[in-house]
Amino acid sequence: MNEFELIARLTRSLPTNNSVVIGAGDDCAVLECGSLSQQLLFKTDAVVEGIHFTTDTPPEQVGRKALARCLSDIAAMAGTPSAALVTIALPKKFSVEFVEKIYAGMNALAKQYNVAIVGGETTTNPERVLISISLTGFVPRGKAVFRSGAKAGDAIFVTGELGGSIAGKHLEFAPRLNEARWLAESFSIHAMMDLSDGLAGDLRHIAHASKVGAELLKFAVPISRAAKEIAKRGDAAKPAFVAALTDGEDFELLFTVASKDAVPLLDAWKKQFPDVKLSCIGKIIAGEGIRLRDQTGVRPLAAQGYAHFS
Amino acid sequence: MNEFELIARLTRSLPTNNSVVIGAGDDCAVLECGSLSQQLLFKTDAVVEGIHFTTDTPPEQVGRKALARCLSDIAAMAGTPSAALVTIALPKKFSVEFVEKIYAGMNALAKQYNVAIVGGETTTNPERVLISISLTGFVPRGKAVFRSGAKAGDAIFVTGELGGSIAGKHLEFAPRLNEARWLAESFSIHAMMDLSDGLAGDLRHIAHASKVGAELLKFAVPISRAAKEIAKRGDAAKPAFVAALTDGEDFELLFTVASKDAVPLLDAWKKQFPDVKLSCIGKIIAGEGIRLRDQTGVRPLAAQGYAHFS
Repeated sequence: MNEFELIARLTRSLPTNNSVVIGAGDDCAVLECGSLSQQLLFKTDAVVEGIHFTTDTPPEQVGRKALARCLSDIAAMAGTPSAALVTIALPKKFSVEFVEKIYAGMNALAKQYNVAIVGGETTTNPERVLISISLTGFVPRGKAVFRSGAKAGDAIFVTGELGGSIAGKHLEFAPRLNEARWLAESFSIHAMMDLSDGLAGDLRHIAHASKVGAELLKFAVPISRAAKEIAKRGDAAKPAFVAALTDGEDFELLFTVASKDAVPLLDAWKKQFPDVKLSCIGKIIAGEGIRLRDQTGVRPLAAQGYAHFS
Repeated sequence: MNEFELIARLTRSLPTNNSVVIGAGDDCAVLECGSLSQQLLFKTDAVVEGIHFTTDTPPEQVGRKALARCLSDIAAMAGTPSAALVTIALPKKFSVEFVEKIYAGMNALAKQYNVAIVGGETTTNPERVLISISLTGFVPRGKAVFRSGAKAGDAIFVTGELGGSIAGKHLEFAPRLNEARWLAESFSIHAMMDLSDGLAGDLRHIAHASKVGAELLKFAVPISRAAKEIAKRGDAAKPAFVAALTDGEDFELLFTVASKDAVPLLDAWKKQFPDVKLSCIGKIIAGEGIRLRDQTGVRPLAAQGYAHFS
């Protein structure tokens, strides 16, 4: 049983109450908070030594990454982050300097996005460092963008370039908060999520949540320079295109809009974010499953994204 | 450096923003959420295998405890819990049944207090299970009870009986949510917190936050039957009274009120919660430090609470 099968099993019958707009299954939970104008976003995410970072990773970058992952999920809902709690689980013999550097990296990113760090916890995890971040955010009432809104005929877009994040981007990526808010304010975004487990897997999440299929255009998928360079090595595990589909931790936005909005959106984007690539990579189709179109025709896409335990 | 010294160092210069009413240092953070009538409470807490529970602890009780600890912190602010996120870090070879039982224990407690579980995460922690819970709650605007409001002359109260939690209460305690809300609605509670690290240490937190001292009445401190039974054993580490002062995980409420309210409060409490003991255990004094009064006189209290890493 992999991570997604386990989550599906656990989330079948979770307790709920009348504050819940959207519970488990999207990038953030969306909750009522007694405000007429806004709704609360709520997210948690953990990074673990040896899984999401190594003992060689500079601790400032570990702290930065831990928070940035959560910020990316707030972006995926078109929200604005607000306040974070930080849990650091540490071996008994820890270096205070190490922990302070984790905080330094986190604090710098928090300041950049006007996020308050309002507490948390230190506890013991004897064998390795684990950092869990909880984040609240806000979104104008009714304006959160879910995974479930994609419609047949929609154009599929992705920001930035995909694959090869392990070469460095996973520690340095900029959460697409400004881009996502601008998108939601300027266009009717039908569905959106952030790419954390690879395009192939994450597009399946949108398709599944929206009860649709998707067709990817092979030559439109933006492949990162890092993915291309890794693929050139003798020991490369996969071609660059497969890396772009299946490598985790891109932290780019994947979203769909009505096809009539595709060209106006691309034009407006280039003016608004001239330094951030935006690619139309395919379309949403009726039915189910992901297919891939290239010069030889159309076939089902086999590549999966990253899953823990699998 | 112990847990509290580390936290003091890390929280010196945390980023903030204008949503923050109270950040790090109280039982929960208190945040503005755009509501005229209420404020948001925000808390995170983790339990770790081998520290907060053992491999023998029934998984239902592990899940229950993980959530109950956070509920107790919402109680300490006189709030109402709302929604939880659950992070479970697991060894690669985990039993699905084990995880489902953790959720079963958590879900049952959540339902009891009308808490929604709105998502979370499963991730990998190769050597041991770690569960981190994040919880939101609400409190009527301006009605959160802080640690910092104790005043010289206040009477100090504690609910329940203290010490010996390890014998079972740490897995079965009822978070004092109803009691705390009733207290805050019925009386002017000056300061409140939940006892997680032992009365001696936690009373110091209230004294420190309120810039006051405290005098405990030895014979008024309610000692649990479990603490007394453990103290009778040949291998007992400490007398029952010391256990009541220093054992962790009591999860009772510690609070102060003006001395004029002490007797009316005790009388009203007995009618409202006839099955829950409430004890007046001393008074807040000007100055600093905790002192203990018994039949021989008054002396400084040396006993400390539980601290990680110490």
